[in-house]
Amino acid sequence: MKNNLWLAGLAVATSLSGHAQTDKIDQAAIQKIRDEGLQRSQVMETAFYLTDVNGPRLQGPGFMKAANWTKDKLTGWGLKNARLEPWGDWGKGWGVERCYLAMTAPYYKSIIAVPRAWSGSTAKLQTAEILFISDSDTTALESYRSKLRNKVILIDQSYKVTPSFRPDADRFTDEALAKMAAESSPARQRSGQDSSYRSLIQSMRTRNAFNQKMRKLAKQEGAVGILNTTQTSKDGTLFVSGDYANAALGSTPDDLADLSISVEDYLMLCRLMKANVPVKLELDVKTKFYTDDIKGYNVLAEIPGTDPKLKDEVVMLGAHLDSWHAATGATDNAAGSAVMMEAVRILNTAGLKPRRTIRIALWSGEEQGLHGSKNYVTNKLVSSGTNKLTREGENLVAYYNVDNGTGKIRGIYLQGNDAAGPIFAEWLKPFHDLGATTVAPRSSGGTDHVSFDRAGLNGFGFIQDRIEYDTRTHHTNMDTYDHLQPDDLKQAATVVAAFVYNTAMRDARIPAKAPAMQSAR
Amino acid sequence: MKNNLWLAGLAVATSLSGHAQTDKIDQAAIQKIRDEGLQRSQVMETAFYLTDVNGPRLQGPGFMKAANWTKDKLTGWGLKNARLEPWGDWGKGWGVERCYLAMTAPYYKSIIAVPRAWSGSTAKLQTAEILFISDSDTTALESYRSKLRNKVILIDQSYKVTPSFRPDADRFTDEALAKMAAESSPARQRSGQDSSYRSLIQSMRTRNAFNQKMRKLAKQEGAVGILNTTQTSKDGTLFVSGDYANAALGSTPDDLADLSISVEDYLMLCRLMKANVPVKLELDVKTKFYTDDIKGYNVLAEIPGTDPKLKDEVVMLGAHLDSWHAATGATDNAAGSAVMMEAVRILNTAGLKPRRTIRIALWSGEEQGLHGSKNYVTNKLVSSGTNKLTREGENLVAYYNVDNGTGKIRGIYLQGNDAAGPIFAEWLKPFHDLGATTVAPRSSGGTDHVSFDRAGLNGFGFIQDRIEYDTRTHHTNMDTYDHLQPDDLKQAATVVAAFVYNTAMRDARIPAKAPAMQSAR
Repeated sequence: MKNNLWLAGLAVATSLSGHAQTDKIDQAAIQKIRDEGLQRSQVMETAFYLTDVNGPRLQGPGFMKAANWTKDKLTGWGLKNARLEPWGDWGKGWGVERCYLAMTAPYYKSIIAVPRAWSGSTAKLQTAEILFISDSDTTALESYRSKLRNKVILIDQSYKVTPSFRPDADRFTDEALAKMAAESSPARQRSGQDSSYRSLIQSMRTRNAFNQKMRKLAKQEGAVGILNTTQTSKDGTLFVSGDYANAALGSTPDDLADLSISVEDYLMLCRLMKANVPVKLELDVKTKFYTDDIKGYNVLAEIPGTDPKLKDEVVMLGAHLDSWHAATGATDNAAGSAVMMEAVRILNTAGLKPRRTIRIALWSGEEQGLHGSKNYVTNKLVSSGTNKLTREGENLVAYYNVDNGTGKIRGIYLQGNDAAGPIFAEWLKPFHDLGATTVAPRSSGGTDHVSFDRAGLNGFGFIQDRIEYDTRTHHTNMDTYDHLQPDDLKQAATVVAAFVYNTAMRDARIPAKAPAMQSAR
Repeated sequence: MKNNLWLAGLAVATSLSGHAQTDKIDQAAIQKIRDEGLQRSQVMETAFYLTDVNGPRLQGPGFMKAANWTKDKLTGWGLKNARLEPWGDWGKGWGVERCYLAMTAPYYKSIIAVPRAWSGSTAKLQTAEILFISDSDTTALESYRSKLRNKVILIDQSYKVTPSFRPDADRFTDEALAKMAAESSPARQRSGQDSSYRSLIQSMRTRNAFNQKMRKLAKQEGAVGILNTTQTSKDGTLFVSGDYANAALGSTPDDLADLSISVEDYLMLCRLMKANVPVKLELDVKTKFYTDDIKGYNVLAEIPGTDPKLKDEVVMLGAHLDSWHAATGATDNAAGSAVMMEAVRILNTAGLKPRRTIRIALWSGEEQGLHGSKNYVTNKLVSSGTNKLTREGENLVAYYNVDNGTGKIRGIYLQGNDAAGPIFAEWLKPFHDLGATTVAPRSSGGTDHVSFDRAGLNGFGFIQDRIEYDTRTHHTNMDTYDHLQPDDLKQAATVVAAFVYNTAMRDARIPAKAPAMQSAR
């Protein structure tokens, strides 16, 4: 899941548009789905290969290795036409080949460090002193010009480490779910218009401008590296993403080693510098840029529809397969990828024959801006000139996405499409015993269903228990296999399989989101 | 605080022995103590020097650096006769000079690693394959003999990482304190006698025997290193102690690099080995043994008593200054050391003149078995031949210890000395507003007051809020300055200063623990 700061405020004008027909459920099919999904699950084995065996799936070589594996796996399970489909030019690939950082004076302490994505390298294992920058205005930066050579830059931060008096992990309570279900359809404008949002954006811009100027100067003057941390980091859990300006073709890789370190180590270094204690570091950072294939790809595969009248219509399910790189992206989003793969495996293995075609998509470049799904929509579903749906776009009945971590499904967000509410409510009934109960009118954002939603297509995301998503796993070095919850993933795959199957079997299409409800973005 | 597995069960037979006199409190003195301790605290500055500036204070050079600093600091504050006092031979010092570990195949991943104390080194930066040992009986070990050369050993473990649905941090509730206060004085025998304890000890012995045999073999056969983790490790928090057999003089340093790593990395390696995925590591571990001074030392200093009749009597307060080495031992036990130093600074700065002599002790070798305090007691307070108290032992009125982390003081454990209860209850009254309320009859163990208690002397520990002690800081790589809670430490120093002062001023001595209550150990 992408950082959804700017999406958090996404909400759309809406009007209630009456009730759609409710549906009879094919209980026998649902039972087959439950049996396969809950009794003979392969979701953890899939997740193991996507995480432990494959490693990080950062846009580029890490993603491609996993993409090829999933293509073969889907083919092996009997899906048709499994393929890697290019969506356009992305840029350079990147990977870590060595990362070592330690403090060697006033005493030895190894430091938990991960290069930010598309970071440069050091020349070798080398020692360096710290240049401590306490200013935060760009004009003061010039005064550091002559002091940067062979230094590692540390910028004063006033972060605070606080003990967790609230649990790291949680699940939705019945009350929270009931409250979400009772909300009315989103009607607010994007909160981008309100003043707190504007001031947040402004302070981010100021900081970014400072960082960019400082990095440019650091590079010109021969600095060795720069250290970063986040307020959210703690206990050895690091939140790490990256600066993908360096991924652009034609850009010069940043020479600096750009390292995320634990907040505890970061603040210790700040305190020592403030107390004028001489500090030395040693570091050895080697990263590699790849230019052999600059394209971005999605993985796609189908279970062909069997009803001659309906098989051109498509029900899609998807998840982004790419991840950040500090760990193996287990909850973001091997979880969603494994769940979606498992959902089609369940349907195929259970021998269910959908009337409409079912298409699974495993997206790339989501973390850098929903690139895979966005390009899929613009390449295929929308005419570039008129901005209207293509024939293929008109045939897209619905897209379902999973990208909220390892937690089980507690329901579905309507994304402002109230007319789908009664249908989904009916479809959830066979899964109330597994905790999936709630239809929430609100829109969720931050991930690939938004690419469909923005085009006026049905793009849905599920309500999932958060577990440790915000505290420990989302974009962290702890987003590893062991933070996956097997029972939750089995449940999620089973529920998704049923939703996709029901969508593919229904006589009528799921109602389209009324034009008035479509996002302006 | 030492691991207190075997001490957890320590409890002593007792009998209620009537009420001691209650005391008038010198409210003016208490107010001076509160003013100095709460308004002009230096406890965090002291803690900063003990942690960030000094580094780990492992028995040996790390401890000695801090010990010399505290001696000078105590002298600077006006304490008398601040000194390092040898307590006997300890063994080799040890420190880390480099620690780097990464997986390089099937992909690159740096691994959070800390050498266990007194670990050996690798020869250089080198690559190694893993030897995965899934057996756990010593007889099967021989089959690995020929496979050990240049390998890093990984022993199969079935640990499980679970999300924290309960908070990492907590404080005692009023109910929990009331329950503790209402307990009767400990009467149980050591639970060492019960069957679950016996079976735990037995399984530890079996595992230790296996480990020892395996390490011996590994060393003989030229293995490079061995990896360890703990069930308690998670999210980047590592619990690290060490094997101090290598600290003994005459022992040969273990050639193996003995590394604690994160449980997530450990379990990933196990899964990859079980799936027959070829794994390669690279590692560079350099440790150093020191033999220039094999003695152990405590830091001692006094505020001399002013009452000619009482000044030979001594009230002691102390904390162990040594730590494990994975971080800077902030909560274990820079916290206690800084609190005790601050307590004597408060008393001295407030210009209070105690009738009895007050002596602060900062112990060493606590983590390896209470060595500093135990030797202090046997060298000075108990006659070696008769096992009776010496003159100095008879003059010891009470010893107060702080070693339960960063949490504020909620009360005091009576250690089975019920007669002290009403006195302490009275002394806590001026601190009820700061949350220090409770007198608990039970005994606490696992740290240096036990050395006094075992000799039949008054040795007391305080009830402290746990905060993150068991989950995040105790013996971990996250036991750092940022996990200290300033307000808690200020409160603790203030309460301790008052207890020590009251003990030094009281007309009568605090009642001795009745002989029947004295621990058999």
